[in-house]
Amino acid sequence: MKRAPIVTFTSDFGNREYYVGAVKGVISEQCPGAQVIDITHEIRSHDIWEAAFVLASAYAEFPARTVHLAVVDPGVGSARRGIAASTEAHSFVAPDNGLLSLIFEREPVRRVVSIEAEHYYRRPVAPTFHGRDIFAPIAARLAGGLSLSRIGPEIDDYVQLNLPPVRKTGSSVLEGVVVHIDKFGNVITSLRPEHVEEHYGEEFSPRLFRIQETQVDRHCRFYAEGGADGVFSLIGSSGYYEIAALKKPAAGLIKARRGMKVALEVGPAPAATGAPPPPDRGRP
Amino acid sequence: MKRAPIVTFTSDFGNREYYVGAVKGVISEQCPGAQVIDITHEIRSHDIWEAAFVLASAYAEFPARTVHLAVVDPGVGSARRGIAASTEAHSFVAPDNGLLSLIFEREPVRRVVSIEAEHYYRRPVAPTFHGRDIFAPIAARLAGGLSLSRIGPEIDDYVQLNLPPVRKTGSSVLEGVVVHIDKFGNVITSLRPEHVEEHYGEEFSPRLFRIQETQVDRHCRFYAEGGADGVFSLIGSSGYYEIAALKKPAAGLIKARRGMKVALEVGPAPAATGAPPPPDRGRP
Amino acid sequence: MKRAPIVTFTSDFGNREYYVGAVKGVISEQCPGAQVIDITHEIRSHDIWEAAFVLASAYAEFPARTVHLAVVDPGVGSARRGIAASTEAHSFVAPDNGLLSLIFEREPVRRVVSIEAEHYYRRPVAPTFHGRDIFAPIAARLAGGLSLSRIGPEIDDYVQLNLPPVRKTGSSVLEGVVVHIDKFGNVITSLRPEHVEEHYGEEFSPRLFRIQETQVDRHCRFYAEGGADGVFSLIGSSGYYEIAALKKPAAGLIKARRGMKVALEVGPAPAATGAPPPPDRGRP
Repeated sequence: MKRAPIVTFTSDFGNREYYVGAVKGVISEQCPGAQVIDITHEIRSHDIWEAAFVLASAYAEFPARTVHLAVVDPGVGSARRGIAASTEAHSFVAPDNGLLSLIFEREPVRRVVSIEAEHYYRRPVAPTFHGRDIFAPIAARLAGGLSLSRIGPEIDDYVQLNLPPVRKTGSSVLEGVVVHIDKFGNVITSLRPEHVEEHYGEEFSPRLFRIQETQVDRHCRFYAEGGADGVFSLIGSSGYYEIAALKKPAAGLIKARRGMKVALEVGPAPAATGAPPPPDRGRP
Repeated sequence: MKRAPIVTFTSDFGNREYYVGAVKGVISEQCPGAQVIDITHEIRSHDIWEAAFVLASAYAEFPARTVHLAVVDPGVGSARRGIAASTEAHSFVAPDNGLLSLIFEREPVRRVVSIEAEHYYRRPVAPTFHGRDIFAPIAARLAGGLSLSRIGPEIDDYVQLNLPPVRKTGSSVLEGVVVHIDKFGNVITSLRPEHVEEHYGEEFSPRLFRIQETQVDRHCRFYAEGGADGVFSLIGSSGYYEIAALKKPAAGLIKARRGMKVALEVGPAPAATGAPPPPDRGRP
Repeated sequence: MKRAPIVTFTSDFGNREYYVGAVKGVISEQCPGAQVIDITHEIRSHDIWEAAFVLASAYAEFPARTVHLAVVDPGVGSARRGIAASTEAHSFVAPDNGLLSLIFEREPVRRVVSIEAEHYYRRPVAPTFHGRDIFAPIAARLAGGLSLSRIGPEIDDYVQLNLPPVRKTGSSVLEGVVVHIDKFGNVITSLRPEHVEEHYGEEFSPRLFRIQETQVDRHCRFYAEGGADGVFSLIGSSGYYEIAALKKPAAGLIKARRGMKVALEVGPAPAATGAPPPPDRGRP
């Protein structure tokens, strides 16, 4: 069966409003046969970093030639640009506010253009809803096979967010932050096994996570391995260390909130409490 | 690529229940290949007016021949009728309780029929779920190309809601209401630029909005133009005046709630604080 | 129009995370042209029984050959198996933790296999996300036409949940539980008209429902019939007795919570307050 064009859609528009429906209407109108697949529309309002994290965790699962539309856009209507980007397998459409930072960090980007092809816009353009009037039609055209070069001039000064830093703060400590609390109450950090390897080498492994007053020195591979008592660390499905608890919200148990500092002590040998988890960070 | 039939779906069924899935199952069964596109299912329970507003703000984006299914149906099972309606480009299926009022107000309606073609219903018909058993199969048949005349007899006494009134309450004041608080906390009113023009003529423009104790005399074109301080008015993407704040929930700042009265003072010249916003009310 | 393969998807992943998007990406990749239709992703975290109830209430509406993917999986990564099952018309993919119990109870099951065909898995397999890495690709393959026998060996010792019991507790009383409070505040019980018939015969009908201190002796066919005052019972659209109120949340009015006991007194003649509702339990 021939593959229909796919457009994924990530936003902070919420599931209670007409905004998501309006965007899908425009895409349906301008790219007949396209399938629009929601990632989420419950990004916290105006939270560009959360959208960047969610998009970066999901996009790689989609087939080649998928177009990823992402709109968290507090600057809508102002002079901020819109951009379209292509990597080897995928295309992206978003406001130029850093939303694609993690994509740019992880993928060899082939081309980024500033969206200027006004003849594709939905008319009239509402200065408060470029998602519907500019980004949706551009995503639809790309899904329909339009070349990126027809969207606008190539640029290389697109906005790159300063991602929450991971830094070495001592001979055996890495410092990151809590980047997300998920629906299950898992506390997802900005730290990845690659950071340990990069800063300390392959022979080091995690010993202890510290968030506020809590110390976590049990490392598990999956939730049920953690057993019924207390919290533990594991490597989550998008490759970040997280603090979790079995069938309980770890965030509540340790009073963790997004943005809090996370210290990770590493040590030269496998941690005393068990083998360190093998790296598992999604697709190679 | 040939366009698959599209059915949009708006309801107060919520995203936690089996209700939405059951409706989509019936449509998939009865119109193979149809795409069901959600507008929202988080309409407040039984809130016909909110559903009317959301549907009216989204439907026009969809391609010609889209069928719009909308179910907010506190009278399900009683003698209230179901209706199907067609405009030049679209079809609509809903209980006859005023849900389509804004469509009837804005579009030249070609035909409205009372749903009586029982042979299309899913059997048995549950007296508590006509969304699944009557409206879904009728929407599926219309999406599959069935003529409206096969659904039931034409009627002209369908229910038309008394929409929140906009009225002139003085030589320079229009009065409306807050019709919606959106996910961002924007306060959407029932007032549109057309109302100013209709009641006062083209040479008048908004001066001041008043909700409870709050006065708003700054008019902006987009959110970022409003800057970091305080609230301002603008024309939202569905053509209504709204009170907003940059990256903050205006509704919380001014303690606005749905249903509150909104007074709009107009004046003969462009407002002192800046040019009035140009009308931008979606597709002409 | 040829029917595209349909995969329904039920989970406790929530609508705020990347989890649902990632699963859909895998299915799109591995079964081009498939339509993934959400039932819900707002199952309470780890609540297998709620997922079982929702899935059992929706699946039968979908066309033959639909694949139903359901993931509520607190044991992910542990030794618990994954299973795929087929009934006459449908296929199911889920962890082997009882999630399919109601399907097994209601449908003649043709075959259940243990998922072992590792060559279909997404690689690497994250020990915390079998929904994406094992269940999604298996569901995609089944949707694409793969035979169940290619997934793994047939088993007959799959987990069957002890469903909330319905039992006779006196000469004229059946006891069940509250299984769900829906978005409207309807209180859905584990009791069905079939239980009355099975335990007391056709000539008996409901007289009185008792939940905590509340007694409900009005039986209605639909919500509007109940009128503006108080609560009443009716048979909901998935065939269970529920306690409801017109345009008000019955659960709040009677302080009902999930898991509470429900006593149903039956009597030999139609209840004094009106004819008992006719059974209406979805498709025969």
